[in-house]
Amino acid sequence: MRFFSDNAAAVCPEVMEALAAANALDTAYDGDRWSQRLDGVFSDLFETQVTALWVATGTAANSLALAALCPPWGSIVCHRDAHIQNDECGAPEFYTNGAKLLLGEGEGAKLTPETVRGLVSGIRKDVHQVQPAAISITNATEYGLVYTPDEVAALGDLARSHGLALHMDGARFANAVVRLGCSVADVTWRAGVDALSFGFAKNGGMSAEVLIFFGETHRQATLYRRKRAGHLLSKGRFMAAQVLAMLENDVWLRNARAANDAAARLAAAAGDRLVLPVEANEVFLRVTAQEAQALRDQGFDFYDWGVGEARLVTSWDSDVQAVDRLAAAISAL
Amino acid sequence: MRFFSDNAAAVCPEVMEALAAANALDTAYDGDRWSQRLDGVFSDLFETQVTALWVATGTAANSLALAALCPPWGSIVCHRDAHIQNDECGAPEFYTNGAKLLLGEGEGAKLTPETVRGLVSGIRKDVHQVQPAAISITNATEYGLVYTPDEVAALGDLARSHGLALHMDGARFANAVVRLGCSVADVTWRAGVDALSFGFAKNGGMSAEVLIFFGETHRQATLYRRKRAGHLLSKGRFMAAQVLAMLENDVWLRNARAANDAAARLAAAAGDRLVLPVEANEVFLRVTAQEAQALRDQGFDFYDWGVGEARLVTSWDSDVQAVDRLAAAISAL
Amino acid sequence: MRFFSDNAAAVCPEVMEALAAANALDTAYDGDRWSQRLDGVFSDLFETQVTALWVATGTAANSLALAALCPPWGSIVCHRDAHIQNDECGAPEFYTNGAKLLLGEGEGAKLTPETVRGLVSGIRKDVHQVQPAAISITNATEYGLVYTPDEVAALGDLARSHGLALHMDGARFANAVVRLGCSVADVTWRAGVDALSFGFAKNGGMSAEVLIFFGETHRQATLYRRKRAGHLLSKGRFMAAQVLAMLENDVWLRNARAANDAAARLAAAAGDRLVLPVEANEVFLRVTAQEAQALRDQGFDFYDWGVGEARLVTSWDSDVQAVDRLAAAISAL
Amino acid sequence: MRFFSDNAAAVCPEVMEALAAANALDTAYDGDRWSQRLDGVFSDLFETQVTALWVATGTAANSLALAALCPPWGSIVCHRDAHIQNDECGAPEFYTNGAKLLLGEGEGAKLTPETVRGLVSGIRKDVHQVQPAAISITNATEYGLVYTPDEVAALGDLARSHGLALHMDGARFANAVVRLGCSVADVTWRAGVDALSFGFAKNGGMSAEVLIFFGETHRQATLYRRKRAGHLLSKGRFMAAQVLAMLENDVWLRNARAANDAAARLAAAAGDRLVLPVEANEVFLRVTAQEAQALRDQGFDFYDWGVGEARLVTSWDSDVQAVDRLAAAISAL
Repeated sequence: MRFFSDNAAAVCPEVMEALAAANALDTAYDGDRWSQRLDGVFSDLFETQVTALWVATGTAANSLALAALCPPWGSIVCHRDAHIQNDECGAPEFYTNGAKLLLGEGEGAKLTPETVRGLVSGIRKDVHQVQPAAISITNATEYGLVYTPDEVAALGDLARSHGLALHMDGARFANAVVRLGCSVADVTWRAGVDALSFGFAKNGGMSAEVLIFFGETHRQATLYRRKRAGHLLSKGRFMAAQVLAMLENDVWLRNARAANDAAARLAAAAGDRLVLPVEANEVFLRVTAQEAQALRDQGFDFYDWGVGEARLVTSWDSDVQAVDRLAAAISAL
Repeated sequence: MRFFSDNAAAVCPEVMEALAAANALDTAYDGDRWSQRLDGVFSDLFETQVTALWVATGTAANSLALAALCPPWGSIVCHRDAHIQNDECGAPEFYTNGAKLLLGEGEGAKLTPETVRGLVSGIRKDVHQVQPAAISITNATEYGLVYTPDEVAALGDLARSHGLALHMDGARFANAVVRLGCSVADVTWRAGVDALSFGFAKNGGMSAEVLIFFGETHRQATLYRRKRAGHLLSKGRFMAAQVLAMLENDVWLRNARAANDAAARLAAAAGDRLVLPVEANEVFLRVTAQEAQALRDQGFDFYDWGVGEARLVTSWDSDVQAVDRLAAAISAL
Repeated sequence: MRFFSDNAAAVCPEVMEALAAANALDTAYDGDRWSQRLDGVFSDLFETQVTALWVATGTAANSLALAALCPPWGSIVCHRDAHIQNDECGAPEFYTNGAKLLLGEGEGAKLTPETVRGLVSGIRKDVHQVQPAAISITNATEYGLVYTPDEVAALGDLARSHGLALHMDGARFANAVVRLGCSVADVTWRAGVDALSFGFAKNGGMSAEVLIFFGETHRQATLYRRKRAGHLLSKGRFMAAQVLAMLENDVWLRNARAANDAAARLAAAAGDRLVLPVEANEVFLRVTAQEAQALRDQGFDFYDWGVGEARLVTSWDSDVQAVDRLAAAISAL
Repeated sequence: MRFFSDNAAAVCPEVMEALAAANALDTAYDGDRWSQRLDGVFSDLFETQVTALWVATGTAANSLALAALCPPWGSIVCHRDAHIQNDECGAPEFYTNGAKLLLGEGEGAKLTPETVRGLVSGIRKDVHQVQPAAISITNATEYGLVYTPDEVAALGDLARSHGLALHMDGARFANAVVRLGCSVADVTWRAGVDALSFGFAKNGGMSAEVLIFFGETHRQATLYRRKRAGHLLSKGRFMAAQVLAMLENDVWLRNARAANDAAARLAAAAGDRLVLPVEANEVFLRVTAQEAQALRDQGFDFYDWGVGEARLVTSWDSDVQAVDRLAAAISAL
């Protein structure tokens, strides 16, 4: 039973069916009738006019967003543990043509206005220094914490007052929304977010993520950037169809809820072994090497996380019985 | 009945089945058991050790290849009508960090050694001029002609003697191989090709192309480049599975043969309306605007190609009866 | 006696004196009192508000201008023989992050509106093609011809109607202005030019060129680009001082006039050996290899220019007697 | 009396004379007889074969060095206070096409092997993470401390064992060498340095720095990079001549010694106001706002350095009497 990462989970049946249903000749690239619906569907979801573009990876979504929001001589404030810093092999630098990431600290990979203010205020406003241009936060974070609408809005206010744009890496946006129980508008554009990488692949999709810009400002340039990055797939209908299938009947929320619930069950069993509160679908445990081995001996796979910690990630299709067995095994340690 | 482009055709059933079969939890990125087989399978096919990397688009395959073969201060000789020049929005320039394309002429989008020699010999060998570093040819070409192994080898020899690398854009490689009836080795590495963009999407795949390097030289750097371009999909097994399904039982050849045969039937009907010989799955016809309209009135869709010409592209799933109706309609013009 | 190029000529005495005079402690970078005068002095000269930035090479001036005027997915229309295409090792591609140069033909390296229109009209307005964003012309051209204000205005009108910016590479701007006898405003911004690389190094300067933007739009971004390209010299006063010295008392016009006059004397002697009219300080002659040798045997150095032609470039300090001896030698061939 | 920065100091007379002496027609770019001597002269100085290229700024020297030593998907370990991080507006990112700087701490802007090891050991060796490729140290540091040959060698050993290259930013290399009293070879290539930005502008030059590669490996690519960055000045002889004049008769050492001596006199007066030992030509003092004002009231100009500190920089031409007056004023605080 694998608890390595949700990005390796299976594809949910609605997506598989949608791929089959989309398997007819149509217009290439994003001219097909599925892709053409994206702006409308996401505008409805977000209760405002958005630009919604499919791409094949979260890295591409993040990088295209950041390239739109930050000039080559700008910097992007993010947490030291952010995916864009640690897990994308410099993709933001490639797409922005050499912007810097300005790294902040914060419990559970969360940034606070104070942290951002401290980083930004140290920059001289002259041509010798790279100028801050954007803030990027991850919701849910790399450590499974969520930003509430108020927390996002506090960063959004700070961003506005400093002339910065605000990007949200939502690789696990669904998990955050389920946890928060808020409208997607409240935790994004109403809180000052300019661009959102809306993740589907970790949540039961196959290969589609959606880059959302709130408004039209960055649409045209991003269409060119997506193409020249090689991210305009010729049979785009299979990208859009995945996403549409997950929005329909709130499959995306159902999937995320399943993952969050599984994590909650593990958390309940973990008690004070928890390194951090469990707010989404990641559980960080304090375990000795022997304890970790004991779990592995019972057939549970997961990553060690530094010394004395382990990371367990649940997903939309985490087997409930396996989760309960793992919960019991953790309790029994 | 649409004859616009093969890049909008349906996905063949073997690929759809393979996607379903791959829908189980496995290792993320390219650590899964499908992706891990690619090097071996393609090495067998090419009768030599190759590096085989899936990517989601031909543009990505071409650009990653060219970035490996050409430094930022280099140039890539290609035909004026090459896809890398006209249809990728500057992706080669983005990935190479600003190399130039050096454009040559040639009937049917084919380059000859004379053309290349002429372009290259005009370059001063000093730091003021961008230095030629690679040749890129397309097989089959954008106009549906094929390079024979001998023709490729002539360019390969020229490349070697000038210190240039040789790239083949094989978006329609299958169609060329079917036409040539040669081994894939003969028309690639044995003829001096260093890198091949091996197309599957236009030939019945959904979203996978394979970048082949003959040898190991460019593997490591390209793995990093692929990742930082956002082209390392998290559920890579669905990429590899498409490709493996098409290699198995020579589905890729069967599909390409069907497309070529359909084009041949149209060509036979077209007689001296043909602008160029039909060697793969593209047919260029001389038609007046009225004639084109007459065809459209009968339900056939295709692109006008400049004034007085039309382009018809067949695909693996071109309906035989529709093709024959179109052939008859062309004859009857 | 060397007639290779004006870019190797001596530095005129006024510049040397200005360097000596500027040799006092002052503020670093461009905060000194010389640099601070540039905007004002050039605004007076051009009769409009300009942004005037020194850089150390024409390549830097051109590239910074083009990076301001053209996005990475754009193209710049220029002549096939333009310096930015042939003699800058891909600097425009480096600075723009991968824009394309779109090459046109034209006698004497001059572009016409027809040529530009032909190049631009062939571009589809979709994301697959790099979109034209700017036109770059050279005045005087690489072949020593000048664009009149009317000719520039015709291109400027075309640029406006197509949404393109207009850049002028003025490495030999002084020679053009002397020839034209017009105001600098008439041949630049009044004719639709957005940015000018105003050359001083070929005209008696040591190491300073000035990038002029008409208006303020591109100032801020270009200041950052100049810095991150390593072109913000710490002792900038020595850059500004060169330029100020050449503007004072119209030294720049005096120098260019001397160079043009020397070329005119050679042209008069050359008669129908001239390949092109001589309008600035370059003379292209038809000479056999033996004739070229005969001139060299008399001590005259110059470049062969293809087969059967020679290029002679005069400069501000061309020795009048040497020029007359060369003129006589040409007549005597 | 200005103690802001040595980068604004006057140009020493030997350089001014050399510029005058070089003011004759010669070959353009770096084909002249001055530029052609650089490799030889610096090879003699360093007692090994080096590649020596002039550029106009330290930023260009650093960035060209780093682009040679680090791929786009690599990182460069440097101190958090390094010039390449804080004062070059992202030039390293621009020239490397998006490498990362990996920031370390350390007293007086010095890196230790422990710091570097800690930073580097945290990087996973997979394609998701930017891989460390180089270390860059500054000697003398931004805070006026020097690395001894042994300290450099310890970093050089670490670099070798981790497959990293080692770059030295020597904007104040002369000041370090004077302080250390060692051979230039001992503190560079014999200690494992691969590339050195050898500063002249801060030490009495006008506009020339020299990029030194120990060996030939990076020569060819760097020549192209220099050109396409716009850093190949047309009248290169004026660049080389500055440098040659400063090497002759050890003017560079004489100048640096004068600057260091002046700083030492200030340090002696400062006593326990010193924030850091004074090892080169920078003095960091603890002063209250009132004390700083008191010094300014006596005509001394300098930068505040955070709260409660001031930075005083001396230079080759610091007036001895002024320095003594400042020393006295500091003592009297």
